[in-house]
Amino acid sequence: MTLDHIQIKPLTAVDFSAFGDVLEAAGIPDRLINHGMGGRFHDRALLDFGPDGRAGISIFDAEPRDLPYHLNILERHPEGSQAFIPMHSNEWLVIVAEAGDTPGPVHAFRVPPGVGVNFHKGTWHGVLTPLHVPGLFAVIDRIGQTSNLQECRLPVPLVITE
Amino acid sequence: MTLDHIQIKPLTAVDFSAFGDVLEAAGIPDRLINHGMGGRFHDRALLDFGPDGRAGISIFDAEPRDLPYHLNILERHPEGSQAFIPMHSNEWLVIVAEAGDTPGPVHAFRVPPGVGVNFHKGTWHGVLTPLHVPGLFAVIDRIGQTSNLQECRLPVPLVITE
Repeated sequence: MTLDHIQIKPLTAVDFSAFGDVLEAAGIPDRLINHGMGGRFHDRALLDFGPDGRAGISIFDAEPRDLPYHLNILERHPEGSQAFIPMHSNEWLVIVAEAGDTPGPVHAFRVPPGVGVNFHKGTWHGVLTPLHVPGLFAVIDRIGQTSNLQECRLPVPLVITE
Repeated sequence: MTLDHIQIKPLTAVDFSAFGDVLEAAGIPDRLINHGMGGRFHDRALLDFGPDGRAGISIFDAEPRDLPYHLNILERHPEGSQAFIPMHSNEWLVIVAEAGDTPGPVHAFRVPPGVGVNFHKGTWHGVLTPLHVPGLFAVIDRIGQTSNLQECRLPVPLVITE
Protein backbone atom coordinates (compact mmCIF):
# COMPACT_ATOMS: atom_id res chain seq x y z
CA MET A 1 0.00 0.00 0.00
CA THR A 2 1.35 3.42 -0.90
CA LEU A 3 0.76 6.01 1.77
CA ASP A 4 -0.07 9.61 0.98
CA HIS A 5 2.63 12.10 1.85
CA ILE A 6 2.19 15.62 3.23
CA GLN A 7 5.16 17.93 2.83
CA ILE A 8 5.97 20.26 5.72
CA LYS A 9 5.65 23.96 4.89
CA PRO A 10 7.16 26.96 6.65
CA LEU A 11 4.68 28.54 9.08
CA THR A 12 3.19 31.86 8.04
CA ALA A 13 0.43 33.79 9.76
CA VAL A 14 -1.50 33.97 6.48
CA ASP A 15 -1.37 30.24 5.79
CA PHE A 16 -2.23 29.47 9.41
CA SER A 17 -5.08 31.98 9.72
CA ALA A 18 -7.78 29.41 8.93
CA PHE A 19 -6.59 27.35 11.90
CA GLY A 20 -5.40 29.81 14.52
CA ASP A 21 -2.92 32.50 15.49
CA VAL A 22 0.85 32.64 15.19
CA LEU A 23 2.32 33.97 18.45
CA GLU A 24 5.60 35.73 17.73
CA ALA A 25 7.53 38.95 18.19
CA ALA A 26 7.35 39.98 14.52
CA GLY A 27 7.47 43.53 13.21
CA ILE A 28 7.05 46.62 15.33
CA PRO A 29 5.83 46.04 18.90
CA ASP A 30 2.42 47.46 19.75
CA ARG A 31 3.83 49.13 22.87
CA LEU A 32 7.19 49.91 24.36
CA ILE A 33 7.37 48.66 27.95
CA ASN A 34 9.77 48.63 30.85
CA HIS A 35 10.93 52.18 30.19
CA GLY A 36 12.00 51.38 26.65
CA MET A 37 13.80 48.13 27.50
CA GLY A 38 11.16 45.89 25.94
CA GLY A 39 8.38 45.59 23.40
CA ARG A 40 4.90 44.21 23.87
CA PHE A 41 3.20 42.43 20.99
CA HIS A 42 -0.24 42.82 22.46
CA ASP A 43 -3.13 40.37 22.70
CA ARG A 44 -2.21 38.18 19.76
CA ALA A 45 -4.51 35.19 20.31
CA LEU A 46 -8.23 34.71 19.76
CA LEU A 47 -9.02 32.97 23.03
CA ASP A 48 -12.41 31.34 23.58
CA PHE A 49 -13.16 29.15 26.58
CA GLY A 50 -16.94 29.02 26.16
CA PRO A 51 -19.65 30.00 28.62
CA ASP A 52 -18.80 27.29 31.13
CA GLY A 53 -15.01 27.24 30.88
CA ARG A 54 -12.14 29.39 32.05
CA ALA A 55 -8.54 29.94 31.03
CA GLY A 56 -5.84 27.76 32.55
CA ILE A 57 -2.11 27.34 32.15
CA SER A 58 -0.75 23.80 32.04
CA ILE A 59 2.68 22.46 31.14
CA PHE A 60 3.09 19.67 28.60
CA ASP A 61 6.21 17.54 28.42
CA ALA A 62 6.10 15.53 25.20
CA GLU A 63 8.40 13.03 23.50
CA PRO A 64 10.10 14.42 20.41
CA ARG A 65 9.18 12.77 17.10
CA ASP A 66 11.28 11.83 14.12
CA LEU A 67 10.63 12.68 10.50
CA PRO A 68 9.06 11.25 8.45
CA TYR A 69 6.21 11.13 10.97
CA HIS A 70 3.24 8.81 10.56
CA LEU A 71 0.04 10.66 11.41
CA ASN A 72 -2.61 8.28 12.69
CA ILE A 73 -5.01 10.48 14.60
CA LEU A 74 -6.34 14.01 14.73
CA GLU A 75 -8.23 15.68 17.54
CA ARG A 76 -10.17 18.83 18.23
CA HIS A 77 -11.52 20.70 21.23
CA PRO A 78 -15.08 21.78 20.43
CA GLU A 79 -15.41 23.98 23.51
CA GLY A 80 -12.25 26.02 23.51
CA SER A 81 -9.11 27.40 21.94
CA GLN A 82 -5.72 25.89 22.80
CA ALA A 83 -2.40 27.73 22.66
CA PHE A 84 1.05 26.11 22.68
CA ILE A 85 4.06 28.15 23.81
CA PRO A 86 7.45 26.45 23.37
CA MET A 87 9.58 26.73 26.54
CA HIS A 88 12.77 26.23 24.53
CA SER A 89 14.53 27.58 21.44
CA ASN A 90 13.91 24.68 19.06
CA GLU A 91 11.74 24.49 15.99
CA TRP A 92 8.71 22.23 16.26
CA LEU A 93 5.97 20.77 14.12
CA VAL A 94 2.29 21.68 13.94
CA ILE A 95 -0.20 19.54 12.05
CA VAL A 96 -3.75 20.76 11.35
CA ALA A 97 -6.65 19.77 9.13
CA GLU A 98 -9.28 21.84 7.42
CA ALA A 99 -12.65 22.20 9.12
CA GLY A 100 -15.49 19.72 8.85
CA ASP A 101 -17.35 17.09 10.84
CA THR A 102 -14.37 14.90 10.10
CA PRO A 103 -10.92 16.35 9.31
CA GLY A 104 -10.45 17.88 5.87
CA PRO A 105 -7.13 18.18 4.00
CA VAL A 106 -4.10 18.05 6.30
CA HIS A 107 -1.37 20.70 6.49
CA ALA A 108 1.95 20.44 8.35
CA PHE A 109 3.91 23.53 9.40
CA ARG A 110 7.44 23.85 10.68
CA VAL A 111 7.34 26.39 13.53
CA PRO A 112 10.55 28.38 13.93
CA PRO A 113 12.29 28.79 17.29
CA GLY A 114 10.64 31.29 19.60
CA VAL A 115 7.19 31.01 18.04
CA GLY A 116 3.94 29.64 19.49
CA VAL A 117 0.53 28.97 18.02
CA ASN A 118 -3.05 29.20 19.23
CA PHE A 119 -5.56 26.79 17.73
CA HIS A 120 -8.94 28.41 17.38
CA LYS A 121 -11.86 26.61 18.99
CA GLY A 122 -12.65 23.41 17.11
CA THR A 123 -9.58 23.27 14.87
CA TRP A 124 -8.58 19.71 13.97
CA HIS A 125 -4.94 19.16 14.90
CA GLY A 126 -2.36 16.49 15.55
CA VAL A 127 -1.02 15.78 18.99
CA LEU A 128 1.91 17.87 20.21
CA THR A 129 4.93 17.07 18.02
CA PRO A 130 8.22 18.54 19.19
CA LEU A 131 11.18 17.60 17.01
CA HIS A 132 13.85 17.92 19.70
CA VAL A 133 14.44 17.53 23.42
CA PRO A 134 13.09 19.18 25.58
CA GLY A 135 9.46 18.80 24.49
CA LEU A 136 8.31 21.40 27.00
CA PHE A 137 5.35 23.67 26.22
CA ALA A 138 3.05 25.91 28.18
CA VAL A 139 -0.54 25.31 27.14
CA ILE A 140 -3.29 27.88 27.59
CA ASP A 141 -6.59 26.12 27.18
CA ARG A 142 -10.03 25.61 28.57
CA ILE A 143 -10.50 24.34 32.10
CA GLY A 144 -13.97 22.89 32.58
CA GLN A 145 -16.04 19.91 33.59
CA THR A 146 -16.36 18.28 30.16
CA SER A 147 -13.80 16.23 28.24
CA ASN A 148 -13.79 18.83 25.42
CA LEU A 149 -12.12 16.31 23.12
CA GLN A 150 -13.05 14.65 19.85
CA GLU A 151 -10.64 12.24 18.20
CA CYS A 152 -10.63 10.97 14.63
CA ARG A 153 -8.44 8.02 13.77
CA LEU A 154 -7.32 8.08 10.14
CA PRO A 155 -8.24 4.92 8.21
CA VAL A 156 -4.79 5.03 6.62
CA PRO A 157 -1.82 6.91 8.11
CA LEU A 158 -0.46 9.99 6.39
CA VAL A 159 3.29 10.42 6.11
CA ILE A 160 4.53 13.87 7.13
CA THR A 161 7.81 14.55 5.36
CA GLU A 162 10.39 17.30 4.94
CA MET B 1 26.31 56.22 49.84
CA THR B 2 26.27 52.48 50.41
CA LEU B 3 23.50 50.69 48.58
CA ASP B 4 21.65 47.74 50.05
CA HIS B 5 22.28 44.41 48.35
CA ILE B 6 19.80 41.61 47.71
CA GLN B 7 21.27 38.21 46.98
CA ILE B 8 19.60 36.09 44.31
CA LYS B 9 18.09 32.84 45.59
CA PRO B 10 17.17 29.69 43.69
CA LEU B 11 13.47 29.63 42.83
CA THR B 12 11.33 27.18 44.78
CA ALA B 13 7.56 26.85 44.71
CA VAL B 14 7.44 27.17 48.50
CA ASP B 15 9.49 30.37 48.65
CA PHE B 16 7.52 31.83 45.75
CA SER B 17 4.06 30.87 47.02
CA ALA B 18 3.44 34.25 48.65
CA PHE B 19 3.93 35.90 45.26
CA GLY B 20 2.60 33.48 42.68
CA ASP B 21 2.94 30.11 41.00
CA VAL B 22 5.95 28.30 39.59
CA LEU B 23 5.06 26.84 36.18
CA GLU B 24 7.16 23.77 35.53
CA ALA B 25 7.07 20.09 34.62
CA ALA B 26 8.13 18.84 38.05
CA GLY B 27 7.27 15.49 39.54
CA ILE B 28 4.65 13.12 38.19
CA PRO B 29 2.34 14.57 35.54
CA ASP B 30 -1.32 14.89 36.45
CA ARG B 31 -2.35 13.14 33.24
CA LEU B 32 -0.74 11.14 30.49
CA ILE B 33 -1.68 12.57 27.10
CA ASN B 34 -1.08 11.87 23.44
CA HIS B 35 -1.44 8.13 23.89
CA GLY B 36 1.33 7.98 26.45
CA MET B 37 3.76 10.19 24.53
CA GLY B 38 3.39 13.16 26.87
CA GLY B 39 2.50 14.36 30.33
CA ARG B 40 0.16 17.17 31.32
CA PHE B 41 0.91 19.18 34.47
CA HIS B 42 -2.60 20.48 34.75
CA ASP B 43 -3.91 23.96 35.57
CA ARG B 44 -0.90 25.19 37.52
CA ALA B 45 -1.65 28.93 37.73
CA LEU B 46 -4.09 30.91 39.84
CA LEU B 47 -5.43 33.18 37.10
CA ASP B 48 -7.61 36.16 37.95
CA PHE B 49 -8.57 38.77 35.39
CA GLY B 50 -11.27 40.49 37.43
CA PRO B 51 -14.92 41.06 36.59
CA ASP B 52 -14.21 43.41 33.68
CA GLY B 53 -11.12 41.77 32.19
CA ARG B 54 -10.35 38.74 30.09
CA ALA B 55 -7.31 36.55 29.46
CA GLY B 56 -4.95 37.50 26.65
CA ILE B 57 -1.67 36.19 25.30
CA SER B 58 0.97 38.75 24.40
CA ILE B 59 4.63 38.36 23.49
CA PHE B 60 7.32 40.40 25.26
CA ASP B 61 10.76 40.93 23.78
CA ALA B 62 12.99 42.41 26.47
CA GLU B 63 16.63 43.46 26.66
CA PRO B 64 18.76 41.13 28.79
CA ARG B 65 20.24 42.66 31.96
CA ASP B 66 23.62 42.25 33.55
CA LEU B 67 24.38 41.37 37.16
CA PRO B 68 24.69 43.11 39.52
CA TYR B 69 21.39 44.72 38.55
CA HIS B 70 20.27 48.04 39.99
CA LEU B 71 16.59 47.88 40.89
CA ASN B 72 14.98 51.31 40.67
CA ILE B 73 11.29 50.60 40.31
CA LEU B 74 8.66 48.03 41.16
CA GLU B 75 5.19 47.66 39.71
CA ARG B 76 1.99 45.76 40.30
CA HIS B 77 -1.21 45.03 38.46
CA PRO B 78 -4.10 45.51 40.89
CA GLU B 79 -6.71 44.05 38.56
CA GLY B 80 -5.13 40.84 37.37
CA SER B 81 -2.58 38.06 37.49
CA GLN B 82 0.34 38.03 35.05
CA ALA B 83 2.19 34.93 33.87
CA PHE B 84 5.58 34.88 32.14
CA ILE B 85 6.53 31.88 30.00
CA PRO B 86 10.12 31.87 28.68
CA MET B 87 10.23 31.03 24.94
CA HIS B 88 13.84 29.88 25.24
CA SER B 89 16.01 27.56 27.34
CA ASN B 90 17.86 30.15 29.40
CA GLU B 91 17.63 30.94 33.08
CA TRP B 92 16.13 34.31 33.95
CA LEU B 93 15.59 36.57 36.93
CA VAL B 94 12.40 37.34 38.84
CA ILE B 95 12.23 40.12 41.40
CA VAL B 96 9.26 40.50 43.74
CA ALA B 97 8.43 42.40 46.91
CA GLU B 98 6.25 41.52 49.84
CA ALA B 99 2.68 42.85 49.88
CA GLY B 100 1.67 46.28 51.11
CA ASP B 101 0.46 49.64 49.88
CA THR B 102 4.08 50.22 48.97
CA PRO B 103 6.51 47.35 48.30
CA GLY B 104 7.75 45.40 51.30
CA PRO B 105 11.05 43.47 51.49
CA VAL B 106 12.44 42.52 48.10
CA HIS B 107 13.33 38.99 46.97
CA ALA B 108 15.19 37.97 43.81
CA PHE B 109 14.92 34.48 42.35
CA ARG B 110 16.96 32.78 39.64
CA VAL B 111 14.48 30.89 37.45
CA PRO B 112 15.94 27.75 35.88
CA PRO B 113 15.59 26.97 32.16
CA GLY B 114 12.17 25.73 31.13
CA VAL B 115 10.32 27.32 34.03
CA GLY B 116 7.75 30.13 34.05
CA VAL B 117 6.03 32.03 36.81
CA ASN B 118 2.58 33.51 37.38
CA PHE B 119 2.36 36.60 39.56
CA HIS B 120 -0.83 36.59 41.58
CA LYS B 121 -3.04 39.64 41.26
CA GLY B 122 -1.44 42.64 42.92
CA THR B 123 2.04 41.18 43.51
CA TRP B 124 4.77 43.82 43.48
CA HIS B 125 7.43 42.83 40.96
CA GLY B 126 10.31 44.17 38.94
CA VAL B 127 10.11 44.61 35.19
CA LEU B 128 10.96 41.60 33.04
CA THR B 129 14.64 40.75 33.53
CA PRO B 130 16.05 38.14 31.18
CA LEU B 131 19.74 37.46 31.68
CA HIS B 132 20.47 36.29 28.12
CA VAL B 133 19.43 36.81 24.52
CA PRO B 134 16.69 36.15 23.40
CA GLY B 135 14.51 37.95 25.94
CA LEU B 136 11.35 36.41 24.52
CA PHE B 137 8.42 35.58 26.80
CA ALA B 138 4.75 34.80 26.34
CA VAL B 139 2.68 36.78 28.82
CA ILE B 140 -0.78 35.73 29.91
CA ASP B 141 -2.41 38.69 31.56
CA ARG B 142 -5.51 40.80 31.82
CA ILE B 143 -6.89 42.52 28.77
CA GLY B 144 -9.17 45.38 29.75
CA GLN B 145 -9.96 49.06 29.44
CA THR B 146 -7.95 50.28 32.43
CA SER B 147 -4.22 50.78 32.79
CA ASN B 148 -4.06 48.15 35.57
CA LEU B 149 -0.63 49.42 36.57
CA GLN B 150 0.85 50.95 39.71
CA GLU B 151 4.50 51.87 39.84
CA CYS B 152 6.67 52.60 42.84
CA ARG B 153 10.06 54.20 42.31
CA LEU B 154 12.53 53.26 45.02
CA PRO B 155 14.06 56.27 46.78
CA VAL B 156 17.43 54.50 46.66
CA PRO B 157 18.25 51.67 44.22
CA LEU B 158 18.75 48.14 45.48
CA VAL B 159 21.61 46.10 44.10
CA ILE B 160 20.62 42.59 43.01
CA THR B 161 23.67 40.35 43.18
CA GLU B 162 24.67 36.74 42.68
